[in-house]
Amino acid sequence: MLEAEVKIRVRYAEVDRMGYVYYGNYATYYEVARRAIMDKIGMSYVKFEDEGYFLPIARMEVRYIQPALYDEVLTVKIRLVRYTRVKLEFEYEIFNQKEELINKGYTLQVFIDGQSRKPTSAPQYFLELLDKYSESEIN
Amino acid sequence: MLEAEVKIRVRYAEVDRMGYVYYGNYATYYEVARRAIMDKIGMSYVKFEDEGYFLPIARMEVRYIQPALYDEVLTVKIRLVRYTRVKLEFEYEIFNQKEELINKGYTLQVFIDGQSRKPTSAPQYFLELLDKYSESEIN
Amino acid sequence: MLEAEVKIRVRYAEVDRMGYVYYGNYATYYEVARRAIMDKIGMSYVKFEDEGYFLPIARMEVRYIQPALYDEVLTVKIRLVRYTRVKLEFEYEIFNQKEELINKGYTLQVFIDGQSRKPTSAPQYFLELLDKYSESEIN
Amino acid sequence: MLEAEVKIRVRYAEVDRMGYVYYGNYATYYEVARRAIMDKIGMSYVKFEDEGYFLPIARMEVRYIQPALYDEVLTVKIRLVRYTRVKLEFEYEIFNQKEELINKGYTLQVFIDGQSRKPTSAPQYFLELLDKYSESEIN
Repeated sequence: MLEAEVKIRVRYAEVDRMGYVYYGNYATYYEVARRAIMDKIGMSYVKFEDEGYFLPIARMEVRYIQPALYDEVLTVKIRLVRYTRVKLEFEYEIFNQKEELINKGYTLQVFIDGQSRKPTSAPQYFLELLDKYSESEIN
Repeated sequence: MLEAEVKIRVRYAEVDRMGYVYYGNYATYYEVARRAIMDKIGMSYVKFEDEGYFLPIARMEVRYIQPALYDEVLTVKIRLVRYTRVKLEFEYEIFNQKEELINKGYTLQVFIDGQSRKPTSAPQYFLELLDKYSESEIN
Repeated sequence: MLEAEVKIRVRYAEVDRMGYVYYGNYATYYEVARRAIMDKIGMSYVKFEDEGYFLPIARMEVRYIQPALYDEVLTVKIRLVRYTRVKLEFEYEIFNQKEELINKGYTLQVFIDGQSRKPTSAPQYFLELLDKYSESEIN
Repeated sequence: MLEAEVKIRVRYAEVDRMGYVYYGNYATYYEVARRAIMDKIGMSYVKFEDEGYFLPIARMEVRYIQPALYDEVLTVKIRLVRYTRVKLEFEYEIFNQKEELINKGYTLQVFIDGQSRKPTSAPQYFLELLDKYSESEIN
């Protein structure tokens, strides 16, 4: 299984009137985790967009279990749960400093051709990277 | 059914490198729609928090059907699909200027006591407002 | 003088732990006001970028006089204080519902060629629009 | 001189349609740098707010010299340039990975009593910490 983990310190800008991380900002934390996956397999998302691909989010689910507070260091765990030529599915778990699970999420991304803005297949080298790393992490 | 509709013009700050509204920002659009519901039933969310209640999001689901672009005026439709003493469930639909459905969402909120930060029941007057407006919109 | 005015309701997402609009979010309010100027002179910023121009901010100054609070309707006043072929300078004043001045700002923007990403001159039709509207508002 | 340095990787959420960090987001980068100062002198901003103090921004100036791009690792340098019982003034410099200066900023903060929301003096222990660390960094 291809997975990664990233630490994020909650910023003041991200916290709302209740003193909790605003519920829309978890999407950004998930994004930071997806970047860590890219890094792990040696992919640059910038290069990927420069080659003419987009990977927009088609679906997201979030469960808010406990609030995250200003200045806490969160641990965001991400794993690739499914992928095909046309989509990527990730699951996320966020833990606070007491190692309590505070948030769970899921995203579905689809490969888009940057020119036509239509669905397309992932480039072959990208699928090979996913295969290689998914396998190596199983064994 | 208690429902409302709100127009939102996409801001430059909300748009990403693809020229699309960043996927986390739909949560803010949903929030603006929830405020319109509050307004419709004559509730002030500020007053509600001042009385010692919080209404954090416990769950969110989002389907991104088409991108929203900078400067587009979106129509966000919201309806209260279920509520009890302890929770509120809303559904959302977002349409672009061509009247295409571009986004669908769902949120679940729970009533929290602002002091203890524990689940609580909604105040009676709030439930009565929901009852009154839900019925009047059915008939 | 070319000027415009826009009403903005403060969103929950924009407010911080103190219950105040986060200080970085005024930049977004200024942006919404600049769009109103564009609208007033019949310009589309989207079209402008599509023609190959960027108008990034080169300098900003902000004075925070009083906080803006959640759900307040702010009035943002903007005026074009100076412009040449290569730059635009705006001043901003934000008033709360009690008509108190709560924020003052200034931005400097420069015309950039979207391809070379180097400074360039504004397109002639844009300068003519600025001339026309600046004069008509003086007389 | 009391100073600190912090590395920040640019997030996708922070980048706009031009591919540049949105101009309002530098305020957040400055905030992350101020937290590093707090950390350096052994202060917790959370504790500070819990004691009944606020430190809102009263003034900000930003010069945008070059754009910051998605996924770049920025170095934010901050130094305390002046302080009294009632205010703190910081200066900021941001460098990209090529060690080019891309942004310069300034903020002024004032001490506020969290209850009365009126200006107040900093707590004595905080001023002593600033004195102690400012001196030790000079010698």
